[in-house]
Amino acid sequence: MSGPRILVVGSVALDSIRTPYGEVEDALGGSASYFSCSASHFAPVSVVAVVGEDFPDEHRRRFEALGVDVSGLATAPGRTFRWRGEYMAELGHAHTLETQLNVFADFHPRLTEAQRRIPYVFLANIDPELQLEVLSQMRRPRLVLSDTMNYWIARKPDRVLEVLRRVDVALLNEEEARALAGETHLARASERLLEEGAHAVIVKKGEHGAVYHAREERFLTPAYPVAALTDPTGAGDSFAGGFVGLCARRDRSDGEVLRQAMACGTVMASLAIESFSPERLLETTPHEIERRVRELHGLIHYDVFPMFDA
Amino acid sequence: MSGPRILVVGSVALDSIRTPYGEVEDALGGSASYFSCSASHFAPVSVVAVVGEDFPDEHRRRFEALGVDVSGLATAPGRTFRWRGEYMAELGHAHTLETQLNVFADFHPRLTEAQRRIPYVFLANIDPELQLEVLSQMRRPRLVLSDTMNYWIARKPDRVLEVLRRVDVALLNEEEARALAGETHLARASERLLEEGAHAVIVKKGEHGAVYHAREERFLTPAYPVAALTDPTGAGDSFAGGFVGLCARRDRSDGEVLRQAMACGTVMASLAIESFSPERLLETTPHEIERRVRELHGLIHYDVFPMFDA
Repeated sequence: MSGPRILVVGSVALDSIRTPYGEVEDALGGSASYFSCSASHFAPVSVVAVVGEDFPDEHRRRFEALGVDVSGLATAPGRTFRWRGEYMAELGHAHTLETQLNVFADFHPRLTEAQRRIPYVFLANIDPELQLEVLSQMRRPRLVLSDTMNYWIARKPDRVLEVLRRVDVALLNEEEARALAGETHLARASERLLEEGAHAVIVKKGEHGAVYHAREERFLTPAYPVAALTDPTGAGDSFAGGFVGLCARRDRSDGEVLRQAMACGTVMASLAIESFSPERLLETTPHEIERRVRELHGLIHYDVFPMFDA
Repeated sequence: MSGPRILVVGSVALDSIRTPYGEVEDALGGSASYFSCSASHFAPVSVVAVVGEDFPDEHRRRFEALGVDVSGLATAPGRTFRWRGEYMAELGHAHTLETQLNVFADFHPRLTEAQRRIPYVFLANIDPELQLEVLSQMRRPRLVLSDTMNYWIARKPDRVLEVLRRVDVALLNEEEARALAGETHLARASERLLEEGAHAVIVKKGEHGAVYHAREERFLTPAYPVAALTDPTGAGDSFAGGFVGLCARRDRSDGEVLRQAMACGTVMASLAIESFSPERLLETTPHEIERRVRELHGLIHYDVFPMFDA
């Protein structure tokens, strides 16, 4: 696959998850995994992450099968990052049962000269100090998207805000946007983050879609209606993969492309949640992705026309 | 205003409402009031309802100022239907404090020959037996939209379903759709209602927009982002007014027009909730309505294009 490359810095994990629709043990997980499996359908991806000596070769081969550059996937002495979680009937929130950081506890991304020149970047949910370290290593990227979580907003709000100021687009879910802005009304929370210096934020609202909010522009994309919701894990990272993926593929991030990127993100999230692990992302095709983007368009499109005579 | 006429059968009431943003006493309210004030911007409206001897002439004159035909607004001995309600901070649900049916208790709509021939019809939230009585009086209407509420779904579910089978489109909110279908998953609830014989349903999801669901077609419209939410009362009836209003104005109800009608409904609901009573609906202009329909379009539109090379 040609075109500009994408860099993702985040976690590669082994997840044990239970939902009302089934369960998995030590399945491929982590933000960088979902992102890579999603974005690599659009443009070539380089992953920077760390796993333990117990990380199955099988998973590494699955990345490679998608053309993902795993030369930055370091193996450190010890065990791979593990997360155990559970979703109740509503599937809205994961209940974390256990987090073992393992080798991830000492993760300090050091980029090669080639990685620093990659133009499209996703800073997945890691310590904002590490996100800033990565940013300071990058050489004039064209588009940087960041993610975060309540854990960091509660502990290092100033660092999280500093990341927001230094990236092009910050991805947050509803609660994170409210917590970081200190404002419950969602639209006002986004406004506040822009006042704090963010260039643009995308607020993910789960089954209610996502909103892109910049000073000059606002648009929203409803969720693609999923027939067989199985496991919501990785939806946000898969959204990020479709979003950054399309921008890289078109090598543009103007308003027109950002809107299409929101649709691609929405579609990749819809695929991710139809299976445990990034299974559906691994097996999907350009044809299926494009069909869903068109279906989503068909679901919301209407023609404007002069309703009233002059 | 030319074009096909619209008939609405419902309530005209005096509302006393408190929200976090203020309160009103004995203000103009009722489903037929909100609907008329909304729909009359699109096409001429005839209202069939009943008020008491205490109904202020001032309110009647406000209908007339919008060109609404109030010859079917009967005055009966006694007091006008009154509703007292309160909204808490979330504004999601009204807490009914008091309902006085008064003259509305004996409401039995008898249509004139001219009213029976009106092609576009809204059966507002009244006893489904009365809705069926009205339907049996109509002469081959082109489009009938119905509304209902949990009160009737709990007491007369079979009658409510019979109405759904006999109208073109049924308007329900999320809880109503779930209750009537006996199914918590919203998309499956809509499917169930179609299986039960409904031709099409519109499920209103408040701040999350509305979904149109027919056997062959499904589309959704996000809510227009309102800057100054004041009082949610009448949002659904105002939506209905924009929806039926546009269909009447264009005298069509094919897929293209239904999509535009969803946008018009969304915009009229956004205006209704920016004030107490139908104040904003009374003062709005074609220019403002059309501007919001375009803004809503701008908020969601994206161009589809071939993302992947063949």
